[in-house]
Amino acid sequence: MAKIIAVNSGSSTLKWKLYSVPDETVIAEGMVDRLGLSDSEFKVKYNGQKTSEIGDIPDHKTAVNKMLKTLLDLNIISDYSEITGVGHRVVAGGDIFKDSALVTPKVLQQIKDLAEFAPLHNPGQAVGIEAFQDILPDVPQVAVFDTSFHQTMDPVNYLYSIPYEYYEKYGVRKFGAHGTSHKYVSKRAAEFVGKPIEDLRIISMHLGSGASIDAIQGGKSVDTSMGFTPLAGITMSSRSGDLDPSLFAFLMDKLKLSDPQDMIDILNNKSGLLGISGVSPDMRDLIATKDENKRSQLAIDIFINRIVKYVGSYIALMGGVDVLLFTAGMGEANSWIRDLIMKKFEYMGVKVDSDANENGKGLRKISADDSAIECLVVPTDEELMIVRDVLRLSK
Amino acid sequence: MAKIIAVNSGSSTLKWKLYSVPDETVIAEGMVDRLGLSDSEFKVKYNGQKTSEIGDIPDHKTAVNKMLKTLLDLNIISDYSEITGVGHRVVAGGDIFKDSALVTPKVLQQIKDLAEFAPLHNPGQAVGIEAFQDILPDVPQVAVFDTSFHQTMDPVNYLYSIPYEYYEKYGVRKFGAHGTSHKYVSKRAAEFVGKPIEDLRIISMHLGSGASIDAIQGGKSVDTSMGFTPLAGITMSSRSGDLDPSLFAFLMDKLKLSDPQDMIDILNNKSGLLGISGVSPDMRDLIATKDENKRSQLAIDIFINRIVKYVGSYIALMGGVDVLLFTAGMGEANSWIRDLIMKKFEYMGVKVDSDANENGKGLRKISADDSAIECLVVPTDEELMIVRDVLRLSK
Repeated sequence: MAKIIAVNSGSSTLKWKLYSVPDETVIAEGMVDRLGLSDSEFKVKYNGQKTSEIGDIPDHKTAVNKMLKTLLDLNIISDYSEITGVGHRVVAGGDIFKDSALVTPKVLQQIKDLAEFAPLHNPGQAVGIEAFQDILPDVPQVAVFDTSFHQTMDPVNYLYSIPYEYYEKYGVRKFGAHGTSHKYVSKRAAEFVGKPIEDLRIISMHLGSGASIDAIQGGKSVDTSMGFTPLAGITMSSRSGDLDPSLFAFLMDKLKLSDPQDMIDILNNKSGLLGISGVSPDMRDLIATKDENKRSQLAIDIFINRIVKYVGSYIALMGGVDVLLFTAGMGEANSWIRDLIMKKFEYMGVKVDSDANENGKGLRKISADDSAIECLVVPTDEELMIVRDVLRLSK
Repeated sequence: MAKIIAVNSGSSTLKWKLYSVPDETVIAEGMVDRLGLSDSEFKVKYNGQKTSEIGDIPDHKTAVNKMLKTLLDLNIISDYSEITGVGHRVVAGGDIFKDSALVTPKVLQQIKDLAEFAPLHNPGQAVGIEAFQDILPDVPQVAVFDTSFHQTMDPVNYLYSIPYEYYEKYGVRKFGAHGTSHKYVSKRAAEFVGKPIEDLRIISMHLGSGASIDAIQGGKSVDTSMGFTPLAGITMSSRSGDLDPSLFAFLMDKLKLSDPQDMIDILNNKSGLLGISGVSPDMRDLIATKDENKRSQLAIDIFINRIVKYVGSYIALMGGVDVLLFTAGMGEANSWIRDLIMKKFEYMGVKVDSDANENGKGLRKISADDSAIECLVVPTDEELMIVRDVLRLSK
C-alpha cells in the first residue's frame, strides 16, 4: 500500500507521522528534538513500542535520512519508492495560498518570503521541505498552510482599523491560524450532526497551548480570533491574546526595553495563563493549585471569560449558532472547562449532557437532546488533513 | 438660586457650562480655544445669543478670570459668591477614585500623579482645577472621573493576560472611559423602562468620535471596551481600537520608528475611520462618499462590525441583555447606523420601530413593543452628571 508522511518541522524539531493510504491508518510516528543542538533526541513509536536515542543530529537532512533509514531497518517500508508523498505543515501562507499547494521552486521561495509573517516557523518549515526534497527528489511534497482555511474571510473581518496603506504596502491583515484543524473539525461536526455544512453556523474552539476560536458559516471561516500572528485573540498558555495597543509602548517604557521584539517575546512566552498565575502555562497545573493559589483560579477565570466573549461576539456576527465544538488538547480532554463554557450559553438554550461530557470518549455530542445548540467534542487530526491534501494535490 | 459650573479643561481648551441648581437648568455655556497659543478664541452662549472674541489668553487662570468677569458683565451673576461649586471632568482616576471626589491638596496631587495613565488629559485638567481654586478659593471643587463608574469591574474583566507583576508594579489594568456618560444614560434608561436598575442588564453604546461599549448589570459596569487607555475597544474616528499586539512591533520596524510614542500617535490620530477610509474621521463624510469611495463604505462596515461583536460578547458575558441603548453624537443622531446595529440582533428577538428610530426625538424607545430587548436612544449629559456630583459631595 502507498504511504504518505505528514511532517511538522521547526527550527530545532521535526515531527512526523507515516500513514498508509487510502485506508488512512497511522503506521509509525516519531520526533526529532534539539535538532542542530547537542544531545538531539530521536524518538520513534511503532507497533505499540516507543524507542528513544540521544546523539547529535546536526541538521534537518541528517534527521530525515535517519528517520527514513529507521523505516527500512524496522521493515516498515522495504524501499523509499513506497513513499508516494510528503505533506508539510506551514504556518504562514499569507494571502497567496488559499489552499494547500504542491511544492514547486516558486512555492518554496514564497514560503521563505512569508517568513516575515511567521519568523519563528516558516524558515524551519522550508528547511524541512528542502531536506525531504533532497532525499526523495521524485516524491511530491505538499505544503499545507495554517492560514488557508481563513482566506475566505471578508475584508470587514480581516482588516484592522489602521491606515489602509499598511495593508497595501506591508500586507497587514488578519490571517488567523489553526486553519487545518478548524477545517477538519467543522467538516467532521457537520457529518456528525447529519446536516450539510452549507446550512450550518459553527463556532470551533481549538483549545491547546495555542488556542483560537473560529466562526464558520456555510463551511467557510468568516472570522477567527488569531490575527496577523498567532499572538492575538484569547488568553493562551503563555501568549497574551488581545491587548490595548497602548500597553505596548507603556510597558516598553516601564521595562526600559529599546527593542520591540523583547516586548513581543514577553507577550508570546511569559504572558497568558503563565503570566497571570505565576505558576504554569499548563491548565492542569492551574487546576491542581487553584485552591491554594488565588492567581491560578484567576488565570482559569480569565481564560474562560475571554473564550465566552469571543464566542458571544461570533454568535452576534453570524446572527446565531447551530454547533459549538471543542477540539485540541484541552478542548478534547477537559470536561470541567467545557462545562464552564457551555453553561455560559444557557441564555441561548444550551443544555449540557453532563454524562456525555464527563464520561464519553472521542467524537460525541455533549449537549442534551433538547439543547437549542448542539455542543460537540471533535478530536482534531491535522496530520490526517495534511495526508488527504497530499493525496488530493499529488494525483 | 445657587449656581454650579461644570468644567472640561484641556491643555489648550477650557469648556464650561453654568447651571442653576436645584432646577438643573443651563444658564450659560462657553469655551476657550487655543488657550496659551496665539489668537485664542473666547466663546460664550447665553440667552440664545452666541458671542466670540479673538485675543491672546496666555493661561488657564486668565481664561477663568475672563469667564467669571463675563458672567458679571452680562448680569448672569451679581457676585462670585453665587457660585457654590465647580465640577471638573478628569479622564484618569486610576483605581484610587471609585467615586467623584471633593478636591483637597491630596486629591489634586493624585490627579497629577495619574497623568501617566492619561498624559494628554490629566495635566490640563489639574491646571484647570488650580485656576478655579486660585480665583474662587472658598468654593468647593469636585473632580468627576471618567473611570470611576468602571471601578466596579471584577479582576477577571479588568486584568490583562500579561505578567501579573505589571499590575502590581505599574498598575496595568483596564480602566475604561466615558464612565460619567455610561452611568448617566444607564440610570436614565432604567427610569425610562420603569424597572429597578438592579434587575437590568444594559449594554450602552456611547458612539462619539471617541466611542465605547459598556456592559452594565444591576447598575454596575461589569466590562467596557476601552482599556488601560481610551485607545482600545471598537473602531473610532481616528483611533484603531483593539489590535494584534504583534502589529505594534511589525509596524515600528516597517515604518522605521524608533520611538513607540510615534506608533501610539498613528494609532490615536491616523487610524480608525480616517485610516481605513482615507477620507475623514467623521461618519457623516463617510456616508456622503460611500457610493463613490469603496473604502468609505468599508470603514462604515468595520465600525458596525466591531460594535456588533462587542455587544455580542457582552450579551454572552451577562447571559443575555434587557436594554440596548445608543448615546453621544453619532449614537443620538444617526438612525441609519442604529438601524444597522439593531438588525444584527434580530436573532435575540430585537425588532426595530423604524418610525421612532428615524423620526423620533430625544429620549425614546426605538424598538417595537414586541421586541424581546428594549432599544433606546438616551441623550447623554455628562455636565449634568458633574453638577449632580458637585451638589452631592459639596454638602
